[in-house]
Amino acid sequence: MLDRLKFKHVFQLRVRNYEVDWQGVLHNANHLLYFEVGRFEYLKHLKIKLDFDTMRNDTKVVLVRNEIDYKSPAKFDDLLNIYTRISYIQKTSFAFEGIIENATTTRLISENIAIHVCLHPHTNEPMPVGDEFKKILQSFEGETLELRERSNSS
Amino acid sequence: MLDRLKFKHVFQLRVRNYEVDWQGVLHNANHLLYFEVGRFEYLKHLKIKLDFDTMRNDTKVVLVRNEIDYKSPAKFDDLLNIYTRISYIQKTSFAFEGIIENATTTRLISENIAIHVCLHPHTNEPMPVGDEFKKILQSFEGETLELRERSNSS
Amino acid sequence: MLDRLKFKHVFQLRVRNYEVDWQGVLHNANHLLYFEVGRFEYLKHLKIKLDFDTMRNDTKVVLVRNEIDYKSPAKFDDLLNIYTRISYIQKTSFAFEGIIENATTTRLISENIAIHVCLHPHTNEPMPVGDEFKKILQSFEGETLELRERSNSS
Amino acid sequence: MLDRLKFKHVFQLRVRNYEVDWQGVLHNANHLLYFEVGRFEYLKHLKIKLDFDTMRNDTKVVLVRNEIDYKSPAKFDDLLNIYTRISYIQKTSFAFEGIIENATTTRLISENIAIHVCLHPHTNEPMPVGDEFKKILQSFEGETLELRERSNSS
Repeated sequence: MLDRLKFKHVFQLRVRNYEVDWQGVLHNANHLLYFEVGRFEYLKHLKIKLDFDTMRNDTKVVLVRNEIDYKSPAKFDDLLNIYTRISYIQKTSFAFEGIIENATTTRLISENIAIHVCLHPHTNEPMPVGDEFKKILQSFEGETLELRERSNSS
Repeated sequence: MLDRLKFKHVFQLRVRNYEVDWQGVLHNANHLLYFEVGRFEYLKHLKIKLDFDTMRNDTKVVLVRNEIDYKSPAKFDDLLNIYTRISYIQKTSFAFEGIIENATTTRLISENIAIHVCLHPHTNEPMPVGDEFKKILQSFEGETLELRERSNSS
Repeated sequence: MLDRLKFKHVFQLRVRNYEVDWQGVLHNANHLLYFEVGRFEYLKHLKIKLDFDTMRNDTKVVLVRNEIDYKSPAKFDDLLNIYTRISYIQKTSFAFEGIIENATTTRLISENIAIHVCLHPHTNEPMPVGDEFKKILQSFEGETLELRERSNSS
Repeated sequence: MLDRLKFKHVFQLRVRNYEVDWQGVLHNANHLLYFEVGRFEYLKHLKIKLDFDTMRNDTKVVLVRNEIDYKSPAKFDDLLNIYTRISYIQKTSFAFEGIIENATTTRLISENIAIHVCLHPHTNEPMPVGDEFKKILQSFEGETLELRERSNSS
């Protein structure tokens, strides 16, 4: 269970009719789209360019793992809160956390952890997370951001 | 890393142009759609009705957790193999595993674990997995299917 | 060219990242989704139930034709105005018109005509448009709503 | 009503579960995606590069109009035939026609006309359709391809 109190960024959206499945609930894959919307809004809010080139021009950022826990259904026309934060930064990777809740009832809809890795654009070798990116995040997230410097012993 | 040798069901599909993102690769949420296609084809192959009513008429099956590991990109027009199996059945839940690989090169694209829970349709209380469903799966999967009878001590 | 001055209903939405294609512009099929969002919001505003049962319980409403003219591209994060109106009602059919424009620049993005037909739910024979539906629309649209009573001479 | 006998290219696909809406039928916007699949397969078959650069390196091809007539619903798991042809070429534009039918019953599902225009990539001024593109199409379509040379009197 992710800790909602640690989140400093929230974005609202409304479930569109074409995003519910034949059971009338938000399709499981669309949760991922919503968490991605949250990440884009989060980065926009922090004025981090969406191609991540604040980090380093020669760094490519790729999503390597998604975990989603579905807690309760979202329905057509529900207004949702998408909470987003970066929870930790390791040497060459970092993790986004996301929470979707019903904005009217605050009922929990789903949770997400999305792990990203920095790669060299040509060799695809892991690259260190950029210092400027780290600074912006530390400044925004403060103490809730975990820095795991020792995790990759290189 | 999932073990491809344990999978007895494979389904092929081709990446459609509208499923790649602005980077030219299969969008991360569409992997989930493909794994779902795999599960539907798997159940169809086993003649298990898609509303799962083989299990019990009064059972509702819901997806509660998805894990996806992205290993390499899929591109427009790539022919993909979607491997699907049910890896374990617990008292009131079961897990699908999925592997997507490039059908031409056998390069691994992504892996998925999708955990489903059986609920009473009215009370939403957990319900035991149906016996007929279990029998069909044991017959198809054989020894690779793990039965975790003791996991919920009720 | 549709006449923007005739539209009394507008709904705003923002282009989400997963709705642009590999060229960075809103995919042509997603225009249809946005026009549909406009129609749902329009009907919601008029308190017409989304299954159209205000019309008659035994009437089924189906979309039979879409026309879309693409005028200029919409990009990721663009804020859009979706204008929606019902332009005419015939004996057994009616037409929605839609306009998408960039909300910041008022540049025209695309236009849509969507023709719907009322059918008997069992026989699929054409059915007259319901009187209550007509009344609500006349009251909202006023003189801009064209009633083509004579069009089907039955 | 489009004339199926004029079509020389057909591509088969199967309706995926996530492409049907809450009414259990293929969503109206997904018809457009299928017609687009047909066009991509058509161009691939004719070895015309998907960025259309066979036409002229300095030409940009944009979709300017879509017309879709919905004739009957497609359901989950239906196997569909997507027929595609280019019906006419004018000085600076050309039209694709598409037909979707149920491959099992040959029942007509929907029809599409998609009009494309050639533009100068920098000025966005209309550009003549490339000669090589015309030649390939004349060779493939033969007499069914209408050349409307006189239509733009420049």
